[in-house]
Amino acid sequence: MTLSLDLTNMMAGALPDGAGISATEWAAAQLRFAQAHAAVHRRTDDLGFLTLPENRALHAATQQVVADVRGRFDDVLLLGIGGSALGPIALRTSLGAAAAAHAAVPRLQVLDNVDPASMAAMLARLELTRTLVLVVSKSGGTVETMAQYLIVRDALAAAVGEAEARRHLIFITDPEVGALRRIARAEGIVTLDVPANVGGRFSVLSPVGLLPAALIGIDTDALLAGAAHVMQASTSVTLMQNVAGAFATAQWLADTSHDRRIQVLMPYADPLRDVALWFVQLWAESLGKRRPDGRSVGPTPVPALGATDQHAQVQLFMEGPLDKTVTFVTVGGRDGAGRIPSRHADIPELGYLGGHTLGELIDIEQRATAGALAARGRFNATLHLDTLDAWHVGALLQTLALATAYAGVLYEVDAFNQPGVELGKQFAYALLGRTGSEAARTEWDALPKPDPRWQI
Amino acid sequence: MTLSLDLTNMMAGALPDGAGISATEWAAAQLRFAQAHAAVHRRTDDLGFLTLPENRALHAATQQVVADVRGRFDDVLLLGIGGSALGPIALRTSLGAAAAAHAAVPRLQVLDNVDPASMAAMLARLELTRTLVLVVSKSGGTVETMAQYLIVRDALAAAVGEAEARRHLIFITDPEVGALRRIARAEGIVTLDVPANVGGRFSVLSPVGLLPAALIGIDTDALLAGAAHVMQASTSVTLMQNVAGAFATAQWLADTSHDRRIQVLMPYADPLRDVALWFVQLWAESLGKRRPDGRSVGPTPVPALGATDQHAQVQLFMEGPLDKTVTFVTVGGRDGAGRIPSRHADIPELGYLGGHTLGELIDIEQRATAGALAARGRFNATLHLDTLDAWHVGALLQTLALATAYAGVLYEVDAFNQPGVELGKQFAYALLGRTGSEAARTEWDALPKPDPRWQI
Repeated sequence: MTLSLDLTNMMAGALPDGAGISATEWAAAQLRFAQAHAAVHRRTDDLGFLTLPENRALHAATQQVVADVRGRFDDVLLLGIGGSALGPIALRTSLGAAAAAHAAVPRLQVLDNVDPASMAAMLARLELTRTLVLVVSKSGGTVETMAQYLIVRDALAAAVGEAEARRHLIFITDPEVGALRRIARAEGIVTLDVPANVGGRFSVLSPVGLLPAALIGIDTDALLAGAAHVMQASTSVTLMQNVAGAFATAQWLADTSHDRRIQVLMPYADPLRDVALWFVQLWAESLGKRRPDGRSVGPTPVPALGATDQHAQVQLFMEGPLDKTVTFVTVGGRDGAGRIPSRHADIPELGYLGGHTLGELIDIEQRATAGALAARGRFNATLHLDTLDAWHVGALLQTLALATAYAGVLYEVDAFNQPGVELGKQFAYALLGRTGSEAARTEWDALPKPDPRWQI
Repeated sequence: MTLSLDLTNMMAGALPDGAGISATEWAAAQLRFAQAHAAVHRRTDDLGFLTLPENRALHAATQQVVADVRGRFDDVLLLGIGGSALGPIALRTSLGAAAAAHAAVPRLQVLDNVDPASMAAMLARLELTRTLVLVVSKSGGTVETMAQYLIVRDALAAAVGEAEARRHLIFITDPEVGALRRIARAEGIVTLDVPANVGGRFSVLSPVGLLPAALIGIDTDALLAGAAHVMQASTSVTLMQNVAGAFATAQWLADTSHDRRIQVLMPYADPLRDVALWFVQLWAESLGKRRPDGRSVGPTPVPALGATDQHAQVQLFMEGPLDKTVTFVTVGGRDGAGRIPSRHADIPELGYLGGHTLGELIDIEQRATAGALAARGRFNATLHLDTLDAWHVGALLQTLALATAYAGVLYEVDAFNQPGVELGKQFAYALLGRTGSEAARTEWDALPKPDPRWQI
């Protein structure tokens, strides 16, 4: 059971024309990383995600809820947005199909937007008498989630009655504050905690991800064990002994010393495609910041999927500006899977394929793409999972979360806030007429208006 | 029926601190655009996508196939990758649910990768006796698609017999060349053309997109009519009368004169989320190029989805480096949809929502985000569809395809090739042992090898 990292193609020597991180840069970065390591690991009290893998009480509470609802529901509908949805979706995509093959479990449905068409289609599809609704919001008052909740709560009440509706609801929210907590207390709705010191985008291994995962049969013990392994391995301040540290430091150097400011995460495995979207939020919202010195920093994460994106984005990665890194995520143990039969042996485009497997093909395509990118001076790295299971997915998620915390220190930003979204939120409140948004309304009214000269 | 564009927030005047495209720049760009316009529209013979909306013979052939197979199949399985899959997927997501609500039509399944787990899951799920298989490859020899075809062809033969299997297959490929055409001729398999002058990523309005769309009940007449309308409107060489031209020119100026090199497409509508992925291929693979003068150019497209990504990427867009544009895609006519009931009127986070609708909320959030971005000097634009139907989706796709062709001229690249993917392809052939790949094998063997110093 291993998650490994290969940085060869990020380094001078492997890349042509003097491209790549030099030994001197790496040695200097080792000193910076030691500071970042200390800054992160001394904060175990206020960075709750560091200890989620060992939080047995929270896991036990989650498992108790799963036991309590067993057999009552055919569908689980999760209402949430951002960190409340991306983690559960990533777990469903990566591990849900395998879990469902081994046990009779409910389906997980996610509404992560306020598109009225999606809400109508979901309500038309679900049998609400057999549906459990998870309402997920760390703050307990996220506008999109509250709007979804109000609609679904009324639909539930219409389907099963007001009293019974409460037994179809579980809230996942802050232990103390917010609207969801207040409603739960008033109405006796079952609630699981997102610890106060765990932010939304770092919450996948809290009940936010654990409850939906456990409900659909994913082995949450293994998920947490993989993440715990990463925490143990990350005690080392030596870069090439700490996967999360080496990943974060290499990406930070590539951006700040080599102008590789766009950072692609490209799994070569369909089940990991939504892990890339989860990573995009984590990396973008944590590192895209205005620093106290006024400088705007932060790499731009881009999701991709191999081999598919070889026919979409790889042309740009190969020949476009030298402004990217590509981190592949590969999976072992697939060589024998998907045998390609021999047919049309006389046709050159097909004849050579017979006898190979899809597993071989996807692995070979990844190696070929990595080699081609390196040959053209394009930074790339590979994260490798020995196999695709709950242990390795837990390890991967915790590695990327920890890397984000390290990168926050390297970039000199607070990786755990998101002040930039506040203005848009206030403008929306103002346009919706929420009490207390009068100042935002004034600021909104002072903005330049759509100009007919620039409209077609 | 209108597709409109608002560039106000790309322009000096609307943005603070002197940011934005100046009137002088825009006037100069008008001259460049006139050249681009001429260069594109004089190529109607070799840029086949320009005339696809009027290609009645191709549409009639597609409709004949739909009529011939009606009632025989419950599932349509499309095998393809890149441009052979992204268009069909975008059409399914944007219009499929509405079409399926009005008629009993088959489901569309797409395999767009060579992950053995996806192939196994798909074959386990499908009833092959009731499945029509579309094999889609412009060149007729795409390695991933050929591998999928060999596996699915054997599975079909096992399920229905060799002779009947041919009646479950339709090929969509070049009219003359390639392995698929050769097999079709030898075995009498029904085949639809991708015209020789239509490249994969510009093929959504050829049978590549039209056949799967028509099979699942999408109104392909309306799709083509919307696209045809765009072609008529694009006769104007005046920028602010040509939506595709104004979009392309504004993005090109933002990149090349203002260093806004990352270009986000952010629909505020769940059904359009995969149109953003289709656009990513179109923009990335067409414009990400090494020019004859040796310069690597090309903006990096990034997909996003509103309101969801307000909780994921918008923090970066608001406070990260000033290196992005955001183009929203909005949809009219949703104000009355998704009424939010009043409940918990005493709780501030919920009380103000009652009586509003989800449609209002998603529209307000888009306006609020656009205003907030502009207030912080972030370039943004809005493409607006009067409503979400086949006409407007056809118009949107053709607008973006045409914009890509214009942008190719502005960037001085060939928007219709993809030479950068050739090296990786040759390396893969070499590793698979395909005859004729000996030179690639030699080049591969000379590459630096993974270095244990950079591996954990």
